[in-house]
Amino acid sequence: MASKPNTRERILQASLQLFNEQGERNVTTNHIASHLGISPGNLYYHFRNKSMIVAELFSGFERSMQSFFVVPDGAGLTLEDKAQYLESLLEILWQYRFMHQGLEYLLESDPELAVRYRRFAQRSLQGTQSIYLAFAEAGILQLTAQQAETLSINVWLVLSAWMQFLTTTLGIQAQLDKHLLRRGIYQILVLEEGHVTPEYQQAVKALCERLYVPLDELRPADAADVPATPSQ
Amino acid sequence: MASKPNTRERILQASLQLFNEQGERNVTTNHIASHLGISPGNLYYHFRNKSMIVAELFSGFERSMQSFFVVPDGAGLTLEDKAQYLESLLEILWQYRFMHQGLEYLLESDPELAVRYRRFAQRSLQGTQSIYLAFAEAGILQLTAQQAETLSINVWLVLSAWMQFLTTTLGIQAQLDKHLLRRGIYQILVLEEGHVTPEYQQAVKALCERLYVPLDELRPADAADVPATPSQ
Repeated sequence: MASKPNTRERILQASLQLFNEQGERNVTTNHIASHLGISPGNLYYHFRNKSMIVAELFSGFERSMQSFFVVPDGAGLTLEDKAQYLESLLEILWQYRFMHQGLEYLLESDPELAVRYRRFAQRSLQGTQSIYLAFAEAGILQLTAQQAETLSINVWLVLSAWMQFLTTTLGIQAQLDKHLLRRGIYQILVLEEGHVTPEYQQAVKALCERLYVPLDELRPADAADVPATPSQ
Repeated sequence: MASKPNTRERILQASLQLFNEQGERNVTTNHIASHLGISPGNLYYHFRNKSMIVAELFSGFERSMQSFFVVPDGAGLTLEDKAQYLESLLEILWQYRFMHQGLEYLLESDPELAVRYRRFAQRSLQGTQSIYLAFAEAGILQLTAQQAETLSINVWLVLSAWMQFLTTTLGIQAQLDKHLLRRGIYQILVLEEGHVTPEYQQAVKALCERLYVPLDELRPADAADVPATPSQ
């Protein structure tokens, strides 16, 4: 019984799309109103300014991410869960990718959002740590609390930099296709490789090999200025 | 016989400082001229617009980074070289940190710079791969070409996201002190841990332990909204 989205919801959806496509700083509330064919006054009735739209989108992003940090029952965790988990995570980061494009500028111009983001990022780091410790409990990984913290930071850095890497280094602007997603998951899984228990090493290796996509297959033809492998 | 820097050089130094402190997009050529106490006309005599200043700073950044990718003689490489190497690398990234703040916006408004950056990033990735293969030759690491590529991408992602992580997640704005540098090097060294040859594992472990700084010691007191370790 999905009803037609109301104006407020349509404004949020259109803003997310335009922010992702054109960058948040290049999109004004007038652009959003004109994109929807509504008057600026109608938009202001729902959101007094762009910051309020960004704040509400950020809440949606937080809610989506939050669901990942509910630590599952350790004993029930499987390796397949991991790959699916990472795939969903990357899809959410892609869905809200405007957040991590020019994040520093976004936060600098909105101190309230900066505080929310800092809390969110720190909670996410803690959530990731708890998940790793649950995988340790399930006998898939073996790591100390310090190693779980270190690994969580690197996963967070790789996750949040992956979209920027695709656009700035590989020259990919379009959409997050299956190849880009798989290679992203691969880059994160290898971070854990050194911590896999002996009985799971073969299975993790097989999973990694299944996800690997060479860089050459990711890059659009016109962006291949430089060969992907050393030519020597 | 260091001579007094000429106006052109002073403009570049002041721009770098202002870009780093305030973000490139918040600094106009008028700001730079007024900061130096010179007329806008004098600045325009040297640089017709801000893009020309950014392009020249980027050349300096490229030159500094280039020196890292001269592959040393494999046999002569030591573990101590690695830590010093990473320290210098992080220092250069910090020195030019405006580049990686809002990188997507910077490149989007300057297509020529976007192409230069893409080539630079791809060359850097290749250079990193070659260095890893040299460490393999020196018997310190053991990895395949595919593993060297994967590792290089993760190192690149962690390096380029480290500064953003410090500001957006830990709330650190000031300067790259020794603690922040050491923890950054630590985060990169652990990426390689799974590839260290048996005879070097003890030494790498000792090096890592020496570099480790708990997150709590990095965070400024007023940014510690959330405890650093899970409270359960």
